[in-house]
Amino acid sequence: MIEETSKENIDRRIQMAAEAYQFLKNTTVKERAAFMNAVADKIEALGEKLLTTANAETSLPLARLTGEKTRTTGQWRSYAKAIATGTYTEPRIDLAQPDKQKGDIRKYNVGIGPVVVFGASNFPFAFSTAGGDTASAIGAGCPVIVKAHPAHSETSQMMADAITDAVTAFGWPEGIFSHITGTSYEIGTYLTQHPDIRAVAFTGSFNGGKALFDIANRRENPIPVFAEMGSINPVFALPDLLENKAEAFAKEYLSSLTLGVGQFCTNPGVCIALKGESLDRFIITLKKEIQEVVPAKMLHKGIYENFEKHKTRAAEQPEVHIIAAADTEINEWQARTMVIKTSARNFIKNPVLNEEVFGPFGIIVICETRDEMVEIAQQLKGQLTITVAATDEDIRKHFMLINFLKDKCGRLLFNGMPTGVEVVYAMQHGGPFPSTTDSRFTSVGPDAVKRFIRPISFQNWPDEFLPEELKNENPLQISRIVDGKVNSGSLKLQTT
Amino acid sequence: MIEETSKENIDRRIQMAAEAYQFLKNTTVKERAAFMNAVADKIEALGEKLLTTANAETSLPLARLTGEKTRTTGQWRSYAKAIATGTYTEPRIDLAQPDKQKGDIRKYNVGIGPVVVFGASNFPFAFSTAGGDTASAIGAGCPVIVKAHPAHSETSQMMADAITDAVTAFGWPEGIFSHITGTSYEIGTYLTQHPDIRAVAFTGSFNGGKALFDIANRRENPIPVFAEMGSINPVFALPDLLENKAEAFAKEYLSSLTLGVGQFCTNPGVCIALKGESLDRFIITLKKEIQEVVPAKMLHKGIYENFEKHKTRAAEQPEVHIIAAADTEINEWQARTMVIKTSARNFIKNPVLNEEVFGPFGIIVICETRDEMVEIAQQLKGQLTITVAATDEDIRKHFMLINFLKDKCGRLLFNGMPTGVEVVYAMQHGGPFPSTTDSRFTSVGPDAVKRFIRPISFQNWPDEFLPEELKNENPLQISRIVDGKVNSGSLKLQTT
Repeated sequence: MIEETSKENIDRRIQMAAEAYQFLKNTTVKERAAFMNAVADKIEALGEKLLTTANAETSLPLARLTGEKTRTTGQWRSYAKAIATGTYTEPRIDLAQPDKQKGDIRKYNVGIGPVVVFGASNFPFAFSTAGGDTASAIGAGCPVIVKAHPAHSETSQMMADAITDAVTAFGWPEGIFSHITGTSYEIGTYLTQHPDIRAVAFTGSFNGGKALFDIANRRENPIPVFAEMGSINPVFALPDLLENKAEAFAKEYLSSLTLGVGQFCTNPGVCIALKGESLDRFIITLKKEIQEVVPAKMLHKGIYENFEKHKTRAAEQPEVHIIAAADTEINEWQARTMVIKTSARNFIKNPVLNEEVFGPFGIIVICETRDEMVEIAQQLKGQLTITVAATDEDIRKHFMLINFLKDKCGRLLFNGMPTGVEVVYAMQHGGPFPSTTDSRFTSVGPDAVKRFIRPISFQNWPDEFLPEELKNENPLQISRIVDGKVNSGSLKLQTT
Repeated sequence: MIEETSKENIDRRIQMAAEAYQFLKNTTVKERAAFMNAVADKIEALGEKLLTTANAETSLPLARLTGEKTRTTGQWRSYAKAIATGTYTEPRIDLAQPDKQKGDIRKYNVGIGPVVVFGASNFPFAFSTAGGDTASAIGAGCPVIVKAHPAHSETSQMMADAITDAVTAFGWPEGIFSHITGTSYEIGTYLTQHPDIRAVAFTGSFNGGKALFDIANRRENPIPVFAEMGSINPVFALPDLLENKAEAFAKEYLSSLTLGVGQFCTNPGVCIALKGESLDRFIITLKKEIQEVVPAKMLHKGIYENFEKHKTRAAEQPEVHIIAAADTEINEWQARTMVIKTSARNFIKNPVLNEEVFGPFGIIVICETRDEMVEIAQQLKGQLTITVAATDEDIRKHFMLINFLKDKCGRLLFNGMPTGVEVVYAMQHGGPFPSTTDSRFTSVGPDAVKRFIRPISFQNWPDEFLPEELKNENPLQISRIVDGKVNSGSLKLQTT
């Protein structure tokens, strides 16, 4: 039974967050980086208990959870390292030019204000209470109010306690982090409408994310919502690759499709290829291999029921044929993998087949011509990822196709599979609508911090009153753009 | 008589823009920078004719227009210079680590797609057809469709021809730049709703900007709208400064308030101060000096009528007293400057007094206590600028006030006046809602480019197919972040 945080307590926590913001926005990048490393330490200190709790709540295997925990502390540490360099404060200094009557102007980025984070069910550590959204918002200088995902409430509470311990250890205001629990939609609406909230981060369904986006835009004072809402992550299997590697590619595709019981937002739900003998071999291999997939339990009952419902709905569309469906006897909430096929024409005209089915379900789209592949590329909605399974020769022959695909995704892969999102600077986890509400930002990698900052310029301020990041002496020794040039030193100005 | 571009022609131009985007997104930063410098040359070549045309259309003096023309070509050239460095493509490369099964991931920013720019009336060059929005969008790699401001249609056409000439000279697709004319609101709605448009930039009224913002968010595929919608640009005159410089400050304030007939979005429409003998001296000086203001014609009839209407409405509010109103006999559309005063309590409770009056109109807000100043700071809506007229001693005594003011503006001045927006890296021209729709971006300075880009990651792509910005050799010799460290060199990788 999950306790609903009362309206009164939510109001109190938001008030505390607004007050904590007045403190947090005046901390330096070095201070916030130190705090983030302390949070990573506290999470590590949760030890085995965290893993066994999450395993009991999510059915995710211990090996996977161990990896995810390492990833999560890695996020706190790597974002801290990036923040400490000052990259995201982007200090710019344009010195006075008295002969041109031009004043001294200095700009840097500050945290935008209190941020609401909605935890996701499929990554209880990395995209939940102490996940990348929370880490990047605090790194930016924003207090965070987490709405915990009810599917792993004990795990969430342990993570919340770890962050709170770090706040206490640093003697920072309690309002820097709050943990709100409950199962009603109203809590999300209430948080997003609250005038003291300045941004929202969400990972989940299209309906959930779009609802928050609309609420935020209808506020008297609109705020940004960064919602990652799912994707069908198309894989374009080009002819030369397929001719040479149909069987190996089939195994690789199926392995990615069923990884983690298909419960990844980068799950490759659609594979597009030209009809022919190579594609036939690909399909035959799929058919055989699908019987070898070991069934596994999904995250919770709701996800399992949704999977069954949407899988069945897709399979029952006109001109759709089931290639293979796992017929293993199932235990409670165990997903049965299914792969269907249809024509390019049918895929283009039927929106149901362009919707994400969250779980191990794939559609093979068969094109009559290369032009149909290009047409699909042009008609596709925005995606987190698109994969091109190809040889170099294929790429040379499909310039137009590749060029259009670039407009439809945040990450474009050359072979390999999209599952597995590296936490690095170069990662873009976010794509054109409807995969996210804002293609200009990523929710994975240190650049996730950019979502929660805004610039402020100071004109003609005495050095003594400027933030550390902008003082002449450059006490934090960060890289700054001074009069248009990169400069890591201190500024020796003549006293006037 | 202004011709209305037909729906058919608008559709055709947007189609051309979408096609031109496929070309423009594959140009390098160096190529776009060269193009932008060519546009600056073409604008310069318009010579005296541009100035006399704009003078006849806007009533702005030739001296002002000469300065604005220099500023405008300076925008094209300085943004070109910034773009050529690769700063805004933000290349990030994380090399493969085969032992960790981690692939090669490379990210850079591309133009977001075709952008609609709405010209503003008060800057016929710098914020209109060939203004900063157009320059920064093209620099980002986005084709531009300008909706010309009808108040200076001939000027706009000359600027459009200059850009088109540059497109022709470069042999680039015609769709890179389009010029749409008309006076109906429907054109703006139609452009903002068009599915091939990817972003909108607007400078003008709150009603106009907010309407576009709402339309864009209600699209099936929402897009960002960067609307700069005005501001009352409060000036907080602190006690020590006022005690020492009441008369000089009054002259400086009035001079900024009436500059360009008050037709600047950074016009300091409100001055907040503590009651007392110093403030009395400030008011007496204002009263005297206002009679010396030389009357001048406003931009057009609509602006003049709006000014008269809103000025009168504000002056007729309860508990408001007129300090001084210019009684000069006026010619057609000549603005009569007015300054009123009211109490802090009345200012806080009456929203009419918090609305921008576009023109030479100021409100002096008289506080009983320092706490009232802080209360005003907390209640203020978002502003483009806030100015603190103060001594160092004042700043030390008003930490809380300054801290709250940082949350309410994009640019915070220490003395001086907010009119005059330098085109430099450190400029933030954009503030919290409702001064703009997105406080995270600026519309002045090279950082304006950031509004029109989005990141894309390439995973495991062969070097030959990567954009120049991301190739191992670094042919553009730009600064990149490689494995987390700044690197301007080429990458020597072992062939695998």
